[in-house]
Amino acid sequence: MNTINYTPIGIIHTSHKTIGDVPIQPAAAKGFIGKIVLNKEYSEGLADINGFSHIILLYHFHKSIGFNLSVIPFLDKNKRGLFATRAPKRPNAIGLSVVKIQKTEDNIIYIEDVDMLDQTPLLDLKPYVPKFDAFPHAKSGWVEQVKDNKIRNSRSDNRFACK
Amino acid sequence: MNTINYTPIGIIHTSHKTIGDVPIQPAAAKGFIGKIVLNKEYSEGLADINGFSHIILLYHFHKSIGFNLSVIPFLDKNKRGLFATRAPKRPNAIGLSVVKIQKTEDNIIYIEDVDMLDQTPLLDLKPYVPKFDAFPHAKSGWVEQVKDNKIRNSRSDNRFACK
Repeated sequence: MNTINYTPIGIIHTSHKTIGDVPIQPAAAKGFIGKIVLNKEYSEGLADINGFSHIILLYHFHKSIGFNLSVIPFLDKNKRGLFATRAPKRPNAIGLSVVKIQKTEDNIIYIEDVDMLDQTPLLDLKPYVPKFDAFPHAKSGWVEQVKDNKIRNSRSDNRFACK
Repeated sequence: MNTINYTPIGIIHTSHKTIGDVPIQPAAAKGFIGKIVLNKEYSEGLADINGFSHIILLYHFHKSIGFNLSVIPFLDKNKRGLFATRAPKRPNAIGLSVVKIQKTEDNIIYIEDVDMLDQTPLLDLKPYVPKFDAFPHAKSGWVEQVKDNKIRNSRSDNRFACK
């Protein structure tokens, strides 16, 4: 199939400097703040974003190379199909996180609960709309067994590191 | 910034053949079914996916070219900042939909509530995990005013069409 080319629209700055110690989800990143520096040419597109409490970030796992179709996720001891996990090494290494907005200033968005590496290239940001995106009763397969405090305290290790 | 290249991992087949009449979100697509045909080489990665009731699809808006930083969304009459909308014409035209899984067979996933065009290239699929992804009380800015029945009945028109 044809290759699709994207160019990052900005950079996400966080305090997570090494791939071996990153919260595995925003749910594990309470209290970590960061900022998105959007390329200045896109500032106008941030109008109205402050009305939303949460945004969806789509970004490139820039330290991820290659993938395995069966992986042992951070939250589990068993091998799982890659597409039943959120592991960063994927055929297309796109990450998705829902984060809280603190405030915006021109082309900068200050965010809470950041779980991505410093210098992560941002591909897109979308408003989080509960009517579109919230399915609190969805069944979550193998993750159902995982206790909340395990999620809150989970950090990555080097199993998905590549460079 | 550097260009990032992705290659689709499969194709989404739906009954929505023209860009002018597509449900604007899965919430507007109740009853529409479709299927994902994943490239066969990735079949192994679908193990364990059946335990999840919903999956997140990231795909390329393949009929979208160009973008405006201020747009009038389908659900509104006022101009809004592009990044405060889910409009398909974006700097990186990545679409995100949460859909229900009906069943899987080898490399095929049958899905419900599909809101994407037929032949949409799939970039990634992730399990939907309420503990990571469900924020039912998030504030949704200008969308708060939009009535549920307007969302349910909304279809696209040609304002974001390009080719």
